[in-house]
Amino acid sequence: MGYKVEAGISNKHLHLSAADLAALYGEGYELTKFKDLKQPGQYAAEEKVDIIGPKGEFKGVRILGPTRPETQVEISLTDARALGVKPPVRESGKLEGTPGIKLVGPAGSVDISEGTIVALRHVHLSPAQAAEAGVADKEIVRVAVNSGRPLVFDEVLIRSGDGHTAEFHVDTDEANAAALSNGDEVEIVKKG
Amino acid sequence: MGYKVEAGISNKHLHLSAADLAALYGEGYELTKFKDLKQPGQYAAEEKVDIIGPKGEFKGVRILGPTRPETQVEISLTDARALGVKPPVRESGKLEGTPGIKLVGPAGSVDISEGTIVALRHVHLSPAQAAEAGVADKEIVRVAVNSGRPLVFDEVLIRSGDGHTAEFHVDTDEANAAALSNGDEVEIVKKG
Repeated sequence: MGYKVEAGISNKHLHLSAADLAALYGEGYELTKFKDLKQPGQYAAEEKVDIIGPKGEFKGVRILGPTRPETQVEISLTDARALGVKPPVRESGKLEGTPGIKLVGPAGSVDISEGTIVALRHVHLSPAQAAEAGVADKEIVRVAVNSGRPLVFDEVLIRSGDGHTAEFHVDTDEANAAALSNGDEVEIVKKG
Repeated sequence: MGYKVEAGISNKHLHLSAADLAALYGEGYELTKFKDLKQPGQYAAEEKVDIIGPKGEFKGVRILGPTRPETQVEISLTDARALGVKPPVRESGKLEGTPGIKLVGPAGSVDISEGTIVALRHVHLSPAQAAEAGVADKEIVRVAVNSGRPLVFDEVLIRSGDGHTAEFHVDTDEANAAALSNGDEVEIVKKG
């Protein structure tokens, strides 16, 4: 049997650079923690912004903190269709050549020139958990979901290191395809 | 290698009983063909209805023809959340105990007492195609998707008989989770 981790389902959200936070919320503004996320040091902020695409928009999309070097907007392919953008499936932080989008906050708006992605599904593990699971940072594994709508996700990225703890991150499309709920256990399966 | 079939992605749609068609469009009304579907005798109609849930609604959802013994509304889990209903994942026609919903057409509305489902993913095959693939009607198989977002769907139902031809039917959530487009080839994998 494979190593078991809990699923964490990501709804659309964004991470902001300090400069874009200042543009959207005002100079010197700091994010207010709404609640801690499972990954150490990461939190959902009280603050939200509107995301405006060529075809549609989403009001009040939550910001995750803390700020990052680059603004990154994470949406599902369902969301992408509604907005009218064509983001690639990408690992967090790999934003080169990804579509831009318009963000609107209470103090102003910004048009990011890139940074819209569909997040590559991945498993977070601490170094100790990765050792126990027998996998390494950047390894590609499968993840089996034994639900009422079972499937095996292929090409799942392991992200391990300090600041990570066991959690399988998927978006809402992926969760729905597997009838997966937050906290459900899934199983890491090493590739042949 | 497994037998290959093309994917057909179902957006939300509905099938109507003759009585519900009369209630929504008027006594004696007949559906107008918009275009043939891949499955023999099935077609997308010109006609559309509004689906009203407790939380949200969808305007202009397409009717598929011809009429059937029972009205059946097929939506994704993403759609179900927007409507505020909790349909089970079900095989077509197995509607007992499924949620009802309100339908609104140009001549009237109906509140169906059951019939809202998330369709169980399935493969249509003619008898000759099933023989070639080495599978039988009602057999449960896996379907492998070798895309930019690869995965293996488990518990996929084979539906074979006259009036079927090779096609893998999934909903938009499932297609998005696998980055699958209409007409993409997928592979049937027999279960051990």
